[in-house]
Amino acid sequence: MKAVVKAGPVYGAVLKDVPVPTPGRGEVLVKIKAASICGTDHHIYIWNEWSQNRIKPPRIMGHEFAGEVVELGPEVTTVKPGAYVSAETHIVCDGCVQCLLGEKHVCQNTKILGVDTDGCFAEYAVVPASNLWLNDPEIPPDIASIQEPLGNAVHTVLSGETRGKTFAVFGCGPIGLMAIGVAKACGASKVIALDINEYRLGLAKDLGADLVANSRQVDPVQVIMDATRGVGVDVVLEMSGASVVYGQMFKAVRAGGRVVLLGLPARPQTVNFSDDIVMRGITVQGITGRRIWDTWLSVRELLSSGRLDLRPIVTHRLDLEDFARGMDLMTSGDCGKVILYPGGVE
Amino acid sequence: MKAVVKAGPVYGAVLKDVPVPTPGRGEVLVKIKAASICGTDHHIYIWNEWSQNRIKPPRIMGHEFAGEVVELGPEVTTVKPGAYVSAETHIVCDGCVQCLLGEKHVCQNTKILGVDTDGCFAEYAVVPASNLWLNDPEIPPDIASIQEPLGNAVHTVLSGETRGKTFAVFGCGPIGLMAIGVAKACGASKVIALDINEYRLGLAKDLGADLVANSRQVDPVQVIMDATRGVGVDVVLEMSGASVVYGQMFKAVRAGGRVVLLGLPARPQTVNFSDDIVMRGITVQGITGRRIWDTWLSVRELLSSGRLDLRPIVTHRLDLEDFARGMDLMTSGDCGKVILYPGGVE
Amino acid sequence: MKAVVKAGPVYGAVLKDVPVPTPGRGEVLVKIKAASICGTDHHIYIWNEWSQNRIKPPRIMGHEFAGEVVELGPEVTTVKPGAYVSAETHIVCDGCVQCLLGEKHVCQNTKILGVDTDGCFAEYAVVPASNLWLNDPEIPPDIASIQEPLGNAVHTVLSGETRGKTFAVFGCGPIGLMAIGVAKACGASKVIALDINEYRLGLAKDLGADLVANSRQVDPVQVIMDATRGVGVDVVLEMSGASVVYGQMFKAVRAGGRVVLLGLPARPQTVNFSDDIVMRGITVQGITGRRIWDTWLSVRELLSSGRLDLRPIVTHRLDLEDFARGMDLMTSGDCGKVILYPGGVE
Amino acid sequence: MKAVVKAGPVYGAVLKDVPVPTPGRGEVLVKIKAASICGTDHHIYIWNEWSQNRIKPPRIMGHEFAGEVVELGPEVTTVKPGAYVSAETHIVCDGCVQCLLGEKHVCQNTKILGVDTDGCFAEYAVVPASNLWLNDPEIPPDIASIQEPLGNAVHTVLSGETRGKTFAVFGCGPIGLMAIGVAKACGASKVIALDINEYRLGLAKDLGADLVANSRQVDPVQVIMDATRGVGVDVVLEMSGASVVYGQMFKAVRAGGRVVLLGLPARPQTVNFSDDIVMRGITVQGITGRRIWDTWLSVRELLSSGRLDLRPIVTHRLDLEDFARGMDLMTSGDCGKVILYPGGVE
Repeated sequence: MKAVVKAGPVYGAVLKDVPVPTPGRGEVLVKIKAASICGTDHHIYIWNEWSQNRIKPPRIMGHEFAGEVVELGPEVTTVKPGAYVSAETHIVCDGCVQCLLGEKHVCQNTKILGVDTDGCFAEYAVVPASNLWLNDPEIPPDIASIQEPLGNAVHTVLSGETRGKTFAVFGCGPIGLMAIGVAKACGASKVIALDINEYRLGLAKDLGADLVANSRQVDPVQVIMDATRGVGVDVVLEMSGASVVYGQMFKAVRAGGRVVLLGLPARPQTVNFSDDIVMRGITVQGITGRRIWDTWLSVRELLSSGRLDLRPIVTHRLDLEDFARGMDLMTSGDCGKVILYPGGVE
Repeated sequence: MKAVVKAGPVYGAVLKDVPVPTPGRGEVLVKIKAASICGTDHHIYIWNEWSQNRIKPPRIMGHEFAGEVVELGPEVTTVKPGAYVSAETHIVCDGCVQCLLGEKHVCQNTKILGVDTDGCFAEYAVVPASNLWLNDPEIPPDIASIQEPLGNAVHTVLSGETRGKTFAVFGCGPIGLMAIGVAKACGASKVIALDINEYRLGLAKDLGADLVANSRQVDPVQVIMDATRGVGVDVVLEMSGASVVYGQMFKAVRAGGRVVLLGLPARPQTVNFSDDIVMRGITVQGITGRRIWDTWLSVRELLSSGRLDLRPIVTHRLDLEDFARGMDLMTSGDCGKVILYPGGVE
Repeated sequence: MKAVVKAGPVYGAVLKDVPVPTPGRGEVLVKIKAASICGTDHHIYIWNEWSQNRIKPPRIMGHEFAGEVVELGPEVTTVKPGAYVSAETHIVCDGCVQCLLGEKHVCQNTKILGVDTDGCFAEYAVVPASNLWLNDPEIPPDIASIQEPLGNAVHTVLSGETRGKTFAVFGCGPIGLMAIGVAKACGASKVIALDINEYRLGLAKDLGADLVANSRQVDPVQVIMDATRGVGVDVVLEMSGASVVYGQMFKAVRAGGRVVLLGLPARPQTVNFSDDIVMRGITVQGITGRRIWDTWLSVRELLSSGRLDLRPIVTHRLDLEDFARGMDLMTSGDCGKVILYPGGVE
Repeated sequence: MKAVVKAGPVYGAVLKDVPVPTPGRGEVLVKIKAASICGTDHHIYIWNEWSQNRIKPPRIMGHEFAGEVVELGPEVTTVKPGAYVSAETHIVCDGCVQCLLGEKHVCQNTKILGVDTDGCFAEYAVVPASNLWLNDPEIPPDIASIQEPLGNAVHTVLSGETRGKTFAVFGCGPIGLMAIGVAKACGASKVIALDINEYRLGLAKDLGADLVANSRQVDPVQVIMDATRGVGVDVVLEMSGASVVYGQMFKAVRAGGRVVLLGLPARPQTVNFSDDIVMRGITVQGITGRRIWDTWLSVRELLSSGRLDLRPIVTHRLDLEDFARGMDLMTSGDCGKVILYPGGVE
């Protein structure tokens, strides 16, 4: 089969012909209908510092997908061939304290599909049956394949109150954009979107942001204060990982408010905890992964009900063979989600 | 001034000319721009059993309004003449355990404006300054006057999770209708509305219900089960007070779900607590009044942001003198909210 | 092996010699060290109405135990022979909405060990590996065997705030007694215990109740009001299932308070929902089973830390052969927990 | 009357004879029975950088007290002469968003008693009636005077789950010590206390810490990991403000855990947000003041019920005239709470 393989410890990846894998005990073989490129895939592709420490080539890339179960490994009883599925990409241990508490997204022994195992930028992929999610048949493969990052957005937004609350979203990459749509669908009274890329600010408007601002051209703190009668927003979503945002967001949130962090800054950040967090009664929440499975249920309900229309986010559709063009789009920032089709774009 | 007065312990009320009241210590005089008729007003008008035990005529009726502060009593410092206001109608003690805990809506010593004191179906009304709410100037008086019952709806809906959850609303009177709009604005994935009045079911659709059903013509439990793959809804809102609903709603909620009660059944109800509540892990929440002031803030944010459009609910606008026609409309059930204008319908 | 068998659809049970069962796929064989008698076992023994509809004899009775894993069935990987275990007795499906949401205690497809499958009043029992709980080795078998009902108590008490709150516990059977200890260990400021059996009220004191009252001799509502300056308790725990308590508890809880139901009344109950629940803003919570696995973790922490001393509750220890005497003790009510030892009382 | 006055912008304070103040509108005059020294008072005394920017001498110092109302200013209706009171020291506006939401502890317009107004290290003090708290008459003045800092501890500890959870408390000054007692009274299964002062570690044991460690002699992270099977504690309480703790506490909390900050570091701190907060799903909560009034109710219930015995914390009792000795004790760190008696130590 065709597969996009990180072949060695250097920039890039190659399209190779590799054997169709065989599902082991508790695993299934999935025929991939659509796969989407994540920022993590891009990191692996450009071979950044994190990748160099984590990835052991050769490795088939990719972890976001929608597809059809075509073969069951031994002892699989929970799914049947023909099922239309996507997958939670955290493979958890089910035995640590966090797993027992229902906090599987912070399992101490997590492995990640397509990072620590072979992934889905291929015609077929092997996935543990216990990681499969049965898709609503009415959701098309492109949208179904982005449920995993949508889960990150839903987990971030729903980690506290949204209803009648004001939001500032720093960073309008795909997950930031999704978070805008989710916040609006869930009763946010005002969503202010900030980025330095005009293309993405345009998408932010399409997703429902009430106000967008280019942080290169105006002071985002001033924009937020002007839009909230000088109080600050109830909630900041940090979706950029940019150091500069760490100097802005604590000034932009109201006393008693929440700062939710999904972005991963490359370096440690210096913060005035006394003035900015303790004295103002701020809560800072680090978010990773998706709650298993309640986040997935929320994702399904939001999509199936039509409350959330993610079609504006899917900006590019490519044949699997054209993956390098997708990676270049990611580098430019002038894209939403890029979808790869192993069977070719319909 | 003109005022609608419950003059004696009999059916009805009369329009009378009475002196403009004088605000006492901590009180203000408000010129009423718009006042809306509540089910409680209707109960007092038709002189039902509850009214006979609670109301001491003569009493100026009415408690839902929007108006302008025109005079301050002694020691009022928190508001100025000219302010555009509505009011929380629960006058609370601020000293009981519930008040200290921030649960003022269940204050042990509550008095109610227009029930235990003279009300707002008049050209002017006296209101404690500490009960005033500063309206957003962009919300017109008819909508501002219905913020109080909207607060009941918001309190009911926001008493638990809404985001990605399915709802059944039993009873489509004005507060039930508002609850439908609030649930949809706050991320409910499906709202099923039930009533026995076709006019009100039509309004339910206008407010955004995904599915409406006439409980006289179809079995509401079956409708709900069919719409939820046999699981039941996550949340039932009981907004009718009808005995028959007590035999339906516990069958219509999923195991682990919530049943929220705002309607007031006239008689005790018999429920199979073992099978319907304990064994299925159901939570039942009684709701009264509005949280002071967080419910009011949520109301303002939902209205000001345009997330909630209540204009379909305001079905009738009358001069104050025509209050009896408004009461007859309430008796028929063929109305949403009826607004009275002491200065005449514009 | 020896086993206590419900042999037919009549009162009682018999000690029989039966074959040691063989663990199937995903199951283990456990050598029982201690097993405790639950109210449900007693219901089956006396063959009450519920049992007649649910139990299909012959059936080995019992579901609360501590023991040692001695043999693994095929495909068991999560536990090893020699492990010291107890078990969650709800066998859940892991696939319904409730299971996906982490509300497995209200799984739509629950089967119960010792009710729907053969149980643990025997020398050996077969248990699904996924239901096993690894015991803290420092907790002795008698206490370890009562972790399952303790889980009911912990689930009930921890379903809301306890810290600095006042409690009334109606019903001092074993789970009510445990709830008293748990509430005290978790910061309750006052626990008032009510029962009609003096033996059990004595145990309530041993478990830490601040005040005990015999509901046959004094009015429990008056006792509670006197002890709370006329306000009522923050939380009522209904652990009796007695109809008479349904006429008392809503008068004994403060406005805005919680009523938590674990007891199972034999018949439907008539309640004034308007006055007692809606107008007073009361929350009623039905509780069943244990949250999987967070309740079990709380149980372990409370026991291992020494915060909770349940030794006063274990009032009788019997050889398995003497099970009938244990059942008679349950009938009399003059006992806490009765422990059966298949290997004989040490 | 005698009063401890910060007379000028230099180290120290002086005992002066000043006029008894007159309560203004909405204020009362309180005869001080006992007043306790807070770290903030010590900061003002030694005239640290924060004090130089905030305090405008001359100013009567002190804000923690218990006393008796002896005179009412105009318009005071909520309290009577003879009342035994302490006070919330945050004077809030009641009109900002935070106040309307019930988050008065982060009011945008807070003034602080004894910092922004004259305080209670004197025979008499003037206090706004709306800030008074009616003490339980059975709590003696020394303990009643420390309810305010106890409120900080209660607010910190009760800001999340405690029941069955493990805690590490960094910093055993008076509020850290109180937090140890509160956590134990509220169901914490293990509390590990860390400090560099042996005297205070001794007090930590008296307050119920399960394990104490001197961070100068052992690695606190290692101590915590050893005590939690390598998982880390569920909750870290940062009560020291020490920079070194910012390098330890994120390694000592388990993935998914909480870090609660009450201590005020003097300088900004550098933290690896990606690895330590985002990827591990950590929540960081800044805490200031006390929730008004629910924290005070919790304080009263914990003290009145005997669940919390703070007597070991009151290590020194001095005549008001000996305040300088109290300040020197604070400098040494070899003390718990120091109580000043304007009427002399009994």
